[in-house]
Amino acid sequence: MTASPSFIAVDWGTSHLRAYLCEVQTQSTFKLLAQRDGPGVVKASQHFGQTLVDTVGDWEQEYGSLPIYISGQITSNIGWHVTPYLECPINPEELLNLAVSFSYAGLTIKALPGTKCMLKNNLFDVMRGEELQILGFLKENPEYQHVKVLLCLPGTHTKWVLLDRGEIICFKTAMTGELYDLLCNQSVLIPNDCAKGEFDWESFEQGCELTLGSDNGNLAHGIFSVRTRQLSKDLTPVQAKAYLSGVLIGSDVRASRHASEWQLLSDTQVVVIGTEQLNKCFITALKQIGVKSIGVDVKAATLSGFNYLFNLEMKE
Amino acid sequence: MTASPSFIAVDWGTSHLRAYLCEVQTQSTFKLLAQRDGPGVVKASQHFGQTLVDTVGDWEQEYGSLPIYISGQITSNIGWHVTPYLECPINPEELLNLAVSFSYAGLTIKALPGTKCMLKNNLFDVMRGEELQILGFLKENPEYQHVKVLLCLPGTHTKWVLLDRGEIICFKTAMTGELYDLLCNQSVLIPNDCAKGEFDWESFEQGCELTLGSDNGNLAHGIFSVRTRQLSKDLTPVQAKAYLSGVLIGSDVRASRHASEWQLLSDTQVVVIGTEQLNKCFITALKQIGVKSIGVDVKAATLSGFNYLFNLEMKE
Repeated sequence: MTASPSFIAVDWGTSHLRAYLCEVQTQSTFKLLAQRDGPGVVKASQHFGQTLVDTVGDWEQEYGSLPIYISGQITSNIGWHVTPYLECPINPEELLNLAVSFSYAGLTIKALPGTKCMLKNNLFDVMRGEELQILGFLKENPEYQHVKVLLCLPGTHTKWVLLDRGEIICFKTAMTGELYDLLCNQSVLIPNDCAKGEFDWESFEQGCELTLGSDNGNLAHGIFSVRTRQLSKDLTPVQAKAYLSGVLIGSDVRASRHASEWQLLSDTQVVVIGTEQLNKCFITALKQIGVKSIGVDVKAATLSGFNYLFNLEMKE
Repeated sequence: MTASPSFIAVDWGTSHLRAYLCEVQTQSTFKLLAQRDGPGVVKASQHFGQTLVDTVGDWEQEYGSLPIYISGQITSNIGWHVTPYLECPINPEELLNLAVSFSYAGLTIKALPGTKCMLKNNLFDVMRGEELQILGFLKENPEYQHVKVLLCLPGTHTKWVLLDRGEIICFKTAMTGELYDLLCNQSVLIPNDCAKGEFDWESFEQGCELTLGSDNGNLAHGIFSVRTRQLSKDLTPVQAKAYLSGVLIGSDVRASRHASEWQLLSDTQVVVIGTEQLNKCFITALKQIGVKSIGVDVKAATLSGFNYLFNLEMKE
């Protein structure tokens, strides 16, 4: 059977580019024909058009002109074509309303907008890409269209998103993943020659415990224990990485627990939408404070979101 | 008048090497004849001997063999010759007890020890270099030999040190300076092409306010406002750097305020021992929570500490 792809979806964040070649089957089902990875917005360092051609150009050559959807940090002011922000509360089905179309070297590209919201402390917050994942999650799990639920989308940045009957009410960003990368690779906390090794869940939980606990300031004044516990041979460098992850994720979860925009109680259910490893990390940390959560695969949610938008455009 | 130097003092931390050529005058007074700067432990990347020769070798050639004292992160396990830790409580006058002597390419070097302490949460903490600055501070300000006082030594890492009648009781580390450098230069928070500009104190104070305030999680979930406030044209990139500094220093000061090892009340006086700029930052943040503090020049304290140890050895 010959493949007959319908569109190309590009999830292009700060750290990664992930391009998907998709074939629509019925309105709600589709098939992933191929996947390619490329450099995120920071590493692509302004050579965005060429990077896209390098990544998906041969798909276009092989299958003819396919519409390309791009989403994520690539549409921000550190990216390629800046798209506007949709203001919360917003139903993510409306994402196409502020999408920006353009061409590059014969490619037809539609860049999705971001979303923004005002928080209780009068600071506002922004995201780009996660609203598409939320759309896909809602399409795959329509029972969440009718309830209030707190979502957690970990990645380079964690986005905590309050969803009410299918609408994004507000959200908060933590730079947990970016901090982890910087501190792992470029600080005194982890030795440069740290071996690769299996993620140590016991050390991770100890890190969570430190910052989930009730003491104020456990992040600012506790993070140095990643180094001192290695000095005392209490942790190997590999364990220290997991412990550092726990310290940062514990602090992120604790901040969400005390957020004035929502309640995080023992009967709240949180849906974590990320990779398998990150989902497990956040689910473990949430469990430590007695909050139940379930994990959803972010790739499936992303593809489902793109597929919904493609079908919506076809109908019009 | 010909210079007749007595010793070379090298303050060699994670980020900077500072070498001083000193001439003793009376036991408590000395003259700084010359200063040279070089790469810190991280940048010197294991070429420690050659770096030292490059920095102070010609002093030795010109003035004959002078004793060289080295102090700071260079004596740690990411540095050159590892020295042991003195356990708190410790009087910094005892620093020479665990110093380690060695030679390199004809240079006679004495590496000072570090200090360590156990904290209330059963984690321990370490420092290297700051105990020498504390020694110098006490020699220059002998009235602090008889009281309890909280010291704050900002730098790559902030050390908060509880001093009681001349003894270091315990201390806590915050990675504030290192985090600031990483986030300023390598994160999405500050644009790569950010212009140089005067430090904006108003933005700094706004940053402090965010994290000094009573909300939990204002560091983890607040730091992203460094970016969003630029997106909304509320801050220029230059202002955003000062705001980021405030967010981090506010969080550091708040953690110290809530430390279970000491009290930070409106009648506590804090002594901040750092550079002029960092002293002003911490004094400003402490003032926002009603705590009085004074600034002491770290270079003068460092030199005074080295001078005391040199004279102590001469007496023996």
